[in-house]
Amino acid sequence: MPDSQNLRVVLASRPVGRPKPTDFRVERAPIPEPADGQVLLEVQTLSLDPYMRWRVSDAKSYAPPIALGDVMVGATVARIKASRHPDWREGDIVLSEAGWQRYALSDGSGLRRLDPAIAPPSTALGVLGMPGLTAYVGLLNIGQPKPGETVVVAAASGAVGSVVGQIARIKGARVVGIAGGPEKCAFVKNELGFDAVVDHQAPDFAQKLAEACPDGIDVYFENVAGHVWDAVLPLLNDFARVPVCGLIANYNDGPADRNGPDRLPATMREILARRITMRGFIVYDFPREQEDEFLRVASGWIREGKLRWREDVVDGLEQAPDAFIGLLEGKNFGKLVVRVGA
Amino acid sequence: MPDSQNLRVVLASRPVGRPKPTDFRVERAPIPEPADGQVLLEVQTLSLDPYMRWRVSDAKSYAPPIALGDVMVGATVARIKASRHPDWREGDIVLSEAGWQRYALSDGSGLRRLDPAIAPPSTALGVLGMPGLTAYVGLLNIGQPKPGETVVVAAASGAVGSVVGQIARIKGARVVGIAGGPEKCAFVKNELGFDAVVDHQAPDFAQKLAEACPDGIDVYFENVAGHVWDAVLPLLNDFARVPVCGLIANYNDGPADRNGPDRLPATMREILARRITMRGFIVYDFPREQEDEFLRVASGWIREGKLRWREDVVDGLEQAPDAFIGLLEGKNFGKLVVRVGA
Repeated sequence: MPDSQNLRVVLASRPVGRPKPTDFRVERAPIPEPADGQVLLEVQTLSLDPYMRWRVSDAKSYAPPIALGDVMVGATVARIKASRHPDWREGDIVLSEAGWQRYALSDGSGLRRLDPAIAPPSTALGVLGMPGLTAYVGLLNIGQPKPGETVVVAAASGAVGSVVGQIARIKGARVVGIAGGPEKCAFVKNELGFDAVVDHQAPDFAQKLAEACPDGIDVYFENVAGHVWDAVLPLLNDFARVPVCGLIANYNDGPADRNGPDRLPATMREILARRITMRGFIVYDFPREQEDEFLRVASGWIREGKLRWREDVVDGLEQAPDAFIGLLEGKNFGKLVVRVGA
Repeated sequence: MPDSQNLRVVLASRPVGRPKPTDFRVERAPIPEPADGQVLLEVQTLSLDPYMRWRVSDAKSYAPPIALGDVMVGATVARIKASRHPDWREGDIVLSEAGWQRYALSDGSGLRRLDPAIAPPSTALGVLGMPGLTAYVGLLNIGQPKPGETVVVAAASGAVGSVVGQIARIKGARVVGIAGGPEKCAFVKNELGFDAVVDHQAPDFAQKLAEACPDGIDVYFENVAGHVWDAVLPLLNDFARVPVCGLIANYNDGPADRNGPDRLPATMREILARRITMRGFIVYDFPREQEDEFLRVASGWIREGKLRWREDVVDGLEQAPDAFIGLLEGKNFGKLVVRVGA
């Protein structure tokens, strides 16, 4: 059923701590008309990702904050509904940055044509998209796992962690996943093929993690922080590498969550005593050629059945705020996307 | 005046928090006799260094703890008093690891002959020794300062920091030192030639540091932790590098010093948002060839007057415990050594 109006989600107020549904506002607006050199995108699938929590905050970060009243940003798979651009045709399926809305204009910059014969288009938002590339560049450039080393992956059933662990196994490492709850743990072990998995919701989580890592930890891919970091820290080996990709346990913290005890001295002590490398990164920090390499290599792994993924699909753009709030609490199971249109 | 007995300092008890004089015991013992293949070392100068605080603790670290009753370890400049080793002659001046004592035996392993014509022998404990090499390998392998970048050095008047800053200047960086008190600050600015210096004892330290770093901080050489880190953290630039060499502000901490607030989340956040690399290291983590390179290069800098140093000399081995306790509180001014014998 074609829409007569655009539907979009804008930032209504800056979240303090945990975002609330009222921090977002669903609006209707006219469907824009492409000018010469533009295309009209009709969004099929919207990606929801933890980085968006940074973008709705006005704290200093690697990217400017979304202005109040602006459409929420986000990667999308879209169909070109109308084209006044010589390079694009109506019906093309493209990776785009249309954000949280049904229709958007584009001048073609940043669009990538997707071939549904290679993989389902929505994988361009996950395993073959920014999350997969994040896993690839962070693990290989910073983590640098060697065969036989132990790699521990937080948020192991998630969009990034699931790829980190599978690549680490392909590279010959022993891979231990950390996930929340028995369902996700079973998926990590049985579907993704990790060597072991530990449930961070278990009361004896730290002990179970130690048991799962009898040779210590050589690479810890940090996506979580919080109590997961506390359990990992004492297990890190000399010269361990810690790519810091996300800190989802901290994103919603307010000042009251920082009362103490002070965990910094213990972390600094281990960094020195064990000569640990911690390095923060975002996906765009590495040479552009690595993206082409990743697409080629990861597509091959998918064809060979070595790289698997799971999507958590939410129906309807109106559900995006609740789904995003749930993502920050680990309620999603696999790569979270919103089905916006057919 | 020759001694008829050996004098030595042993570890009497494991310090809890700040070491006390009674954690050490001064003993007399017979002067040992060299067997075939051994030399008798007569210590002239003993080096006191912050790493010794790690060695008297039994917490897991990069080296085993000193056993109770054992002689305290330490680098020394010694004269060979008697030799039954074909490679060493009486009267040779050698870098050695005799520890906190007047006389020690050695089988020759690890000894390095020192030529007083090149530099005063005690420099082998400081600017041309382990502290100088620590500065060199940490700054160049991890810090990697580029011309025009801002390098901030904690404990800037100390054995390591003074060398870090001078090398960073030689490499074309703008160098800001942090030191405690006006005397040390004047030395760092006027004698060592840093571009700027900030007194961490000043009540407006954090603001003064920000003013001294108008372009932010690209390399922070961490030797201190504590409130110095808190002032540095918000000034770190994207892709800043933090070689973690020491944490002297934390070494004496007990559990009560960790009440809070929790400073870890803010540090992790900046590591991610600014894509910071923190890496702990000790001097022996790097290829052995870098030590030869350092000795050659640093000797040249000394000849050219580009690399200066200051010694803080304490007289008499009996003073070593108090001097060591003072070192951990920043009471020394320059490389701390103990004159043990003539």
